[in-house]
Amino acid sequence: MRSVSIIGIGITDFGALPEGIVSLGAEACCAALADGGISPERVDAFFLGNFAGQAFTGQSHLAPMIAHAAGLGPVPCTRLEGACASGGLAMRQGVQAVASGAADMVLVAGAEKMSSTSTTKTAEVLAAAGDWVTEGARGATFPALFALMAKRHMHEFSTTREDLAGVSVKNHSHGMLNPKAHFRKEITVQEVLEARPVADPLGMLDCSPISDGAAAVVLCPDEMVADLHATPVSVLASAQASGPPALSASRDITRLRATVRAAEEAFRVASLQPEDIDLAEVHDCFSIAEIIALEDIGFYPKGEGGRAAREGETALGGAMPVNTSGGLKAKGHPVGATGVAQICEIALQLRGEAGARQVPGAEFGLAHNLGGSGATCAVHILRACA
Amino acid sequence: MRSVSIIGIGITDFGALPEGIVSLGAEACCAALADGGISPERVDAFFLGNFAGQAFTGQSHLAPMIAHAAGLGPVPCTRLEGACASGGLAMRQGVQAVASGAADMVLVAGAEKMSSTSTTKTAEVLAAAGDWVTEGARGATFPALFALMAKRHMHEFSTTREDLAGVSVKNHSHGMLNPKAHFRKEITVQEVLEARPVADPLGMLDCSPISDGAAAVVLCPDEMVADLHATPVSVLASAQASGPPALSASRDITRLRATVRAAEEAFRVASLQPEDIDLAEVHDCFSIAEIIALEDIGFYPKGEGGRAAREGETALGGAMPVNTSGGLKAKGHPVGATGVAQICEIALQLRGEAGARQVPGAEFGLAHNLGGSGATCAVHILRACA
Repeated sequence: MRSVSIIGIGITDFGALPEGIVSLGAEACCAALADGGISPERVDAFFLGNFAGQAFTGQSHLAPMIAHAAGLGPVPCTRLEGACASGGLAMRQGVQAVASGAADMVLVAGAEKMSSTSTTKTAEVLAAAGDWVTEGARGATFPALFALMAKRHMHEFSTTREDLAGVSVKNHSHGMLNPKAHFRKEITVQEVLEARPVADPLGMLDCSPISDGAAAVVLCPDEMVADLHATPVSVLASAQASGPPALSASRDITRLRATVRAAEEAFRVASLQPEDIDLAEVHDCFSIAEIIALEDIGFYPKGEGGRAAREGETALGGAMPVNTSGGLKAKGHPVGATGVAQICEIALQLRGEAGARQVPGAEFGLAHNLGGSGATCAVHILRACA
Repeated sequence: MRSVSIIGIGITDFGALPEGIVSLGAEACCAALADGGISPERVDAFFLGNFAGQAFTGQSHLAPMIAHAAGLGPVPCTRLEGACASGGLAMRQGVQAVASGAADMVLVAGAEKMSSTSTTKTAEVLAAAGDWVTEGARGATFPALFALMAKRHMHEFSTTREDLAGVSVKNHSHGMLNPKAHFRKEITVQEVLEARPVADPLGMLDCSPISDGAAAVVLCPDEMVADLHATPVSVLASAQASGPPALSASRDITRLRATVRAAEEAFRVASLQPEDIDLAEVHDCFSIAEIIALEDIGFYPKGEGGRAAREGETALGGAMPVNTSGGLKAKGHPVGATGVAQICEIALQLRGEAGARQVPGAEFGLAHNLGGSGATCAVHILRACA
């Protein structure tokens, strides 16, 4: 298998935007191609992460739609869906296509348009990412499921309501430094605690928003990099695992097995340990999700994720900066785009181009993208090129 | 790259069925695993073709749902969507995973549940497979788009209304021999001509039905076959190409460039010519679609597809049997399942196990799966093992 480099990244603004999904997707694709100095005709294959284009926008079959709008040739265009991990799955298929030699120049994008749908409809569409029959249709939507995880985590590990709030506060603080972020607004622990309740103990400010946006990366084999005018970043590992689709099927809801397994596989392939990683983007769809992810990936022992947030270890300037982009909470969470946007942030950091939010000397970065309440997880490890 | 074999096939009944999509998908998966003598724990990766689970059933994230129901372990589970070519794309990703060594034992399935949705809603969901903004939302649904192709084909090549009808009559005749088919009923040219009009010149009996169903195959590298108690079929080529998402963007609507390109690539990889193929399953979503596909693949010169149907060349017993399963018209068209069901039929034929519809001595078979009005096409070529 060939080694794979990221040679171009592109990301739209995230937020409630006027553009449609095809325009957003094409904008991110064109930005990534321009960043890598690659013309659209050079692309051999296109992979798109999208969760629910049909439900949100009335348009299916989005891979050829976006490819056509971005000026690609008649190459294979494939949409991947794994709920909120759709972007991570697109990245993994793209990496495998290059690694195997099936394609040389691969464009990977993620896109979602959510803001034009009613909140009720959006909640129903999102609930379909879990086990609809046994959970969603009975009212156990995602805020409720993650609230259960939070309650249990608080019970078992003395995690506090303030620890959860600290995750949101930190990610909003990071989002202040990201010009593309949906929210660029500091919030306080007090504001999180006093926000409108959603599902006890989670309030409005523990939840990622409903966003529009797209992100894209260009991949090629390492051996082609020398001929390009690009700043490459190496893909050291691309791992994916599954877990029970229904949370009720998990014996321990403070641990998501898909994350544990995908992270173990990624570290094994990269021949690295969690302590080697300089920064990470993890899937903070809810504040509790970041805490659980940090533990499941192995950055902290189970039960210490809350402490890490409380003591500032995961903030910029801390020992283990997490979600420097602002994370899903502040950067925004256009579902299908999220996994690819995480890759863009890590690549930007490893290129040393993250500006005010740069992690100095970052060499290794990890991206963690979760689907549903743990049915799908994709983990990627990237390395700066010397 | 490793050579890939199909070592198990499984297919549910097609029709308006009581089961839900997860049950149908799991049933096909279990049947394919049983056929190959493979326990679910041996599967390394799962690829699912599904077009619109969310819209039709309220359930997204179907790959881990179906994998869980089929008893698979926590392996990567990935859904592919390319409209009506979703099954073909799942097959191609599965083949690539085995070929590249990313996985050894791969399960590929396609599933769709359509019959529980209102006809109006179904039409809207299906229209989303085309360019919704410029065509679907303006009333150019798929029957209308394929009717335009038919009109132009009749104008340019003197194809007759009876030629179109002949495709449906033939496929219903084949469907009589397939116990899994949605329709097992002979029809006559007269009945097709007198059927309720849908979009001139296409009537009700020129259109494939709305069906439920699922199909699955098990893939592994050739080198593992000797240790298994299975009847293998070789995958010689797996090709995919794209075309303009809107039919209005095509200069020549009697030719689908994605089919031409994918077929050329498949023949090149397999080192074969169209005349080497003993039988084919092609995407007859409408009667005209089979005629155009036969020409675009290269089985007949452009303009002679109608004649081939009229003269019985594409019927069982003819020089080039096409859609021995009954095709989408009679076997049924549960959208995401179709591409995988085509592979099952070809594999069954190449194993010599197709019973009453067996093509004697079949060695090479081709499957052609189309998405939208030509935005996506997947072509696979299979060979019987000596």
